[in-house]
Amino acid sequence: MELVWQHRWGADVYPLSTSTLVIVLRIARCTPVARLQVHYGDRYELDFRSCKDAKHYGSDGAFDYFTCEVEVPTRRLKYAFEAVSSSGQVVYLGEGGLATTLDAVPPYQYPYIHPSQVLTVPEWAGNTVAYEVFPDRFSVGGRLLICPSVPWEAHPTTESVFGGNLRGITDKLPYLRDLGVNLLYLTPIFQAPSNHKYDTQDYFNIDPSFGTLDDLRSLVQEAHRLGIRVVLDAVFNHSGFRFSPFQDVIQRGRASSYWSWFFVDGDHVDVESVNYETFATRLRHMPKLNLAEPAVQEYLLAVAKHYVLECDIDGWRFDVANEIDPHFWPLLRAELRALKPDILLIGEIWHDGLPWLTGDAFDGVMNYPLRDLVLRYAVDEAIDEVEFAHKWVRLYLQYPRPAWRAMWNLLGSHDTERALTRARGHVPSVVLAFAMLFTLPGIPMVYYGDEIGMEGGTDPDCRRGMIWNENLWKNDLREAVRQLAWLKRTHPALAGDTMEIRDANSGVLHYVRLNGTGPHLHIAVCKRRDFGAEVDSPRFAWDVPSRTSGEERKILIWECDSTEGCGHDSRADGFHNQ
Amino acid sequence: MELVWQHRWGADVYPLSTSTLVIVLRIARCTPVARLQVHYGDRYELDFRSCKDAKHYGSDGAFDYFTCEVEVPTRRLKYAFEAVSSSGQVVYLGEGGLATTLDAVPPYQYPYIHPSQVLTVPEWAGNTVAYEVFPDRFSVGGRLLICPSVPWEAHPTTESVFGGNLRGITDKLPYLRDLGVNLLYLTPIFQAPSNHKYDTQDYFNIDPSFGTLDDLRSLVQEAHRLGIRVVLDAVFNHSGFRFSPFQDVIQRGRASSYWSWFFVDGDHVDVESVNYETFATRLRHMPKLNLAEPAVQEYLLAVAKHYVLECDIDGWRFDVANEIDPHFWPLLRAELRALKPDILLIGEIWHDGLPWLTGDAFDGVMNYPLRDLVLRYAVDEAIDEVEFAHKWVRLYLQYPRPAWRAMWNLLGSHDTERALTRARGHVPSVVLAFAMLFTLPGIPMVYYGDEIGMEGGTDPDCRRGMIWNENLWKNDLREAVRQLAWLKRTHPALAGDTMEIRDANSGVLHYVRLNGTGPHLHIAVCKRRDFGAEVDSPRFAWDVPSRTSGEERKILIWECDSTEGCGHDSRADGFHNQ
Repeated sequence: MELVWQHRWGADVYPLSTSTLVIVLRIARCTPVARLQVHYGDRYELDFRSCKDAKHYGSDGAFDYFTCEVEVPTRRLKYAFEAVSSSGQVVYLGEGGLATTLDAVPPYQYPYIHPSQVLTVPEWAGNTVAYEVFPDRFSVGGRLLICPSVPWEAHPTTESVFGGNLRGITDKLPYLRDLGVNLLYLTPIFQAPSNHKYDTQDYFNIDPSFGTLDDLRSLVQEAHRLGIRVVLDAVFNHSGFRFSPFQDVIQRGRASSYWSWFFVDGDHVDVESVNYETFATRLRHMPKLNLAEPAVQEYLLAVAKHYVLECDIDGWRFDVANEIDPHFWPLLRAELRALKPDILLIGEIWHDGLPWLTGDAFDGVMNYPLRDLVLRYAVDEAIDEVEFAHKWVRLYLQYPRPAWRAMWNLLGSHDTERALTRARGHVPSVVLAFAMLFTLPGIPMVYYGDEIGMEGGTDPDCRRGMIWNENLWKNDLREAVRQLAWLKRTHPALAGDTMEIRDANSGVLHYVRLNGTGPHLHIAVCKRRDFGAEVDSPRFAWDVPSRTSGEERKILIWECDSTEGCGHDSRADGFHNQ
Repeated sequence: MELVWQHRWGADVYPLSTSTLVIVLRIARCTPVARLQVHYGDRYELDFRSCKDAKHYGSDGAFDYFTCEVEVPTRRLKYAFEAVSSSGQVVYLGEGGLATTLDAVPPYQYPYIHPSQVLTVPEWAGNTVAYEVFPDRFSVGGRLLICPSVPWEAHPTTESVFGGNLRGITDKLPYLRDLGVNLLYLTPIFQAPSNHKYDTQDYFNIDPSFGTLDDLRSLVQEAHRLGIRVVLDAVFNHSGFRFSPFQDVIQRGRASSYWSWFFVDGDHVDVESVNYETFATRLRHMPKLNLAEPAVQEYLLAVAKHYVLECDIDGWRFDVANEIDPHFWPLLRAELRALKPDILLIGEIWHDGLPWLTGDAFDGVMNYPLRDLVLRYAVDEAIDEVEFAHKWVRLYLQYPRPAWRAMWNLLGSHDTERALTRARGHVPSVVLAFAMLFTLPGIPMVYYGDEIGMEGGTDPDCRRGMIWNENLWKNDLREAVRQLAWLKRTHPALAGDTMEIRDANSGVLHYVRLNGTGPHLHIAVCKRRDFGAEVDSPRFAWDVPSRTSGEERKILIWECDSTEGCGHDSRADGFHNQ
């Protein structure tokens, strides 16, 4: 019996606790199996004490994915798989390859489950709705702290200053609460010359054009009073040009006590030729910091702790997290968790984030791959239900399941084109995309203004001034987002990390959210007229006609005690056999 | 065009330096490709500036393996693959899946090459021959330091004391030099009650039955004088029962300042029920140490540095390395490398060792999977040349190539049955196994006595007293090992990390060792009578008739400037098409 499979330590097995492991095995569809079992036991015992069926989760088109959750009382596990073909042939597989008997196969090993390898995500992440604000562009509160360079309604350039500030954000917290937001993420607010503040001059000072430390304290206090948590943006990969340690290096060269904080090629900084590493390629205003250097680690750990201690913030989003020396994160996580056990740590990672989701770094990452997937299905209509399901299966099983409670799911950010612009102004497509964002596992994050239908191309156009004139709002879109936010915040099924696809075929996408023994939530997108007739009192229902064909389409969300969907023909088998 | 492939960050791409990456892609043989190219460029640029052909390395039976080495001037790489089918169809593949154009595929990303992710192995590892000694069983030098419990010739039990000591080892260094050994590995020598010393009582004291710190100094000095390096055994996963911090915890319970050094369930140690974690399962004499605890880290770092500073040892082998909190290794590696830049660090890992070979932990691991492979081919004759090649391809490409210069390749150890016993006394099989061990990439390690044909089953039988009566030696075996050791120590091709299979078919196994522009070394095992007629003056030639069939068989090693083998019909294409 031939078998093409994939299973590797570090990617396909992870702990849920120090006594539970989840094992994921992929089998290529060119060598299908009818049944898959996992034999397992303590590494120091001769035999495999236990055996359990692996569950077929789905397919990515090339591979079938199987998962199995096993108990590991001794923290040490060996395991091997038993695969049965449709003709009844049996083969065993382990790290050493294939064999015809279980004894003959060198098994896979999980040597020891360390607490640091168990990803524990804040409990509150489950029912959270996040909102991203770009402070210069959201709202002016009290007197202007800087002279704006353009009117509020202008299309921004990379240099524009609009004059938004922290008091302005505080003033608008009731708006956010009304929308259903309970987590506010601010892009950087520390002293920096640019409008975006990603070129930090002083990590211990709020930018004067935004306000003071007291303004930040007031913002957090008022947010907490309204049930809204606050996450700040930590730009640790690089500093700004004016950062005093870098200025010292410019002045003193190798004699500077900050010399090792940066990567300078030569004995002196040459600003003209940019003989030092920077963010991206030769961006002289953003010298790269050396986080392998203990003094830099200590300094940035102090920054991260300072705003927790001084202002009681609830989390950090780490800019360019994928380019920072990875040994920094375990130190940071340990120190911040000791200070605030339920602090949320999110990494900016645009690609496969697995290396940062293995327990000792972040709770979640900015989920750009999901953005791409949802927009391509709901907005571009470039992929159909089958392809959506294939890509979802691949993405979902790429990460440890607990991370899916904290994945930061977004349709857009200060770094991308806005959703409605991508949809060429077609509101129903954006409603559909938001409905999926709010009902897939993770924290949905609304980029300021997307909820009222603001438009904007890529940076800097996506950073226009927030529209406060309600006459210019797309109120149907805002109403949809409010309903979805309320559902996300209150429904127990949406707080979990489990999602299963029930149907993905011929114009129907039907998935279910499960969370322990609570009621399930079903989500269905359907192009057929007759869909949903059986669903009584849906929790959310919206007409979302196709943007490209105009074809009638609906999204329905309903609660049900069964995973099959209460009378709706879920065609679960159809999905598994596609 | 359908394609079943496998490529993942953390497993299939690694740096050779901060400006070079090796990319490995697997394509299932059920969806073969005729050509594979890598498109790559800086992550922050829009297009892919460069394109290079990937090279087909071989197959593991299920997947074809392709590799490509690319330059990364900016340390940040994005890349995608272009696959061409035999019918000329083209498909592009990246992290986001398959696409019909290069622009449409979200590429893979290597965010930034950190120096800590570049595995640098000591230069001297390349031409090294190691020898493992179990000190109680090797040789008695000077007066006995402990009263033996059994005669030297006895079959050991788990309790036996033979009385071997450090002076005995020093006395026998000329024997090792004569054999061709230039690296000596001693199993533990620190004070401990057992004969094997894996239950450390005092890490800062040499066991009195073995000698003193001065004896160790003399041993290392004399070894260095003879060109032999010395590696000690670090048992850091657990201590012994008598280790004073554990005794303190027994006495004081939670009040002990060492309480956090161990994992005790409850407020007091209960020796009877073993309410604390141990090595393996409830081995009360080996309480597990908590290496996530900074005080324990500091203590064991001090131990590791002590013997480098005091005795000038050249490396450490870390016992049960796979069960130790992984955050310890980067600290250890940084501190030891700062002390001695070419120190060798080897982990005891019996299974897939990749997580410990990514630059910040070990140089190599004890290569038990290779032992299994070589013995099954050369000794058991349980697998043929084709299967050997399949399993070699999988094992070799499982690790970053630099690790292959330091992999600790062995036929046996104090934890396994001896090679000649596995071969049921058939010496030629063991010669063949040694010839492969010495000519595959890595450091061949001879377990004491295996070179003279000592026998012994699994522990404790594999730990018999070394035979010094030359009349009882298998001199042909010893002569083969001496020739092979000399070749390994002197031939530049064997110092590298590159091996390619030229032929693996119908009774022929032919592989070549390459190292830059130097001469190549060819190794061939052949069952056919006519093999090798064209090879002039081989560097090693030995008759190795089949143990099971008695069929005539030879192993030949010859030097050649060509990778094809100087006139021998290498049938390279045959291998690639099998």
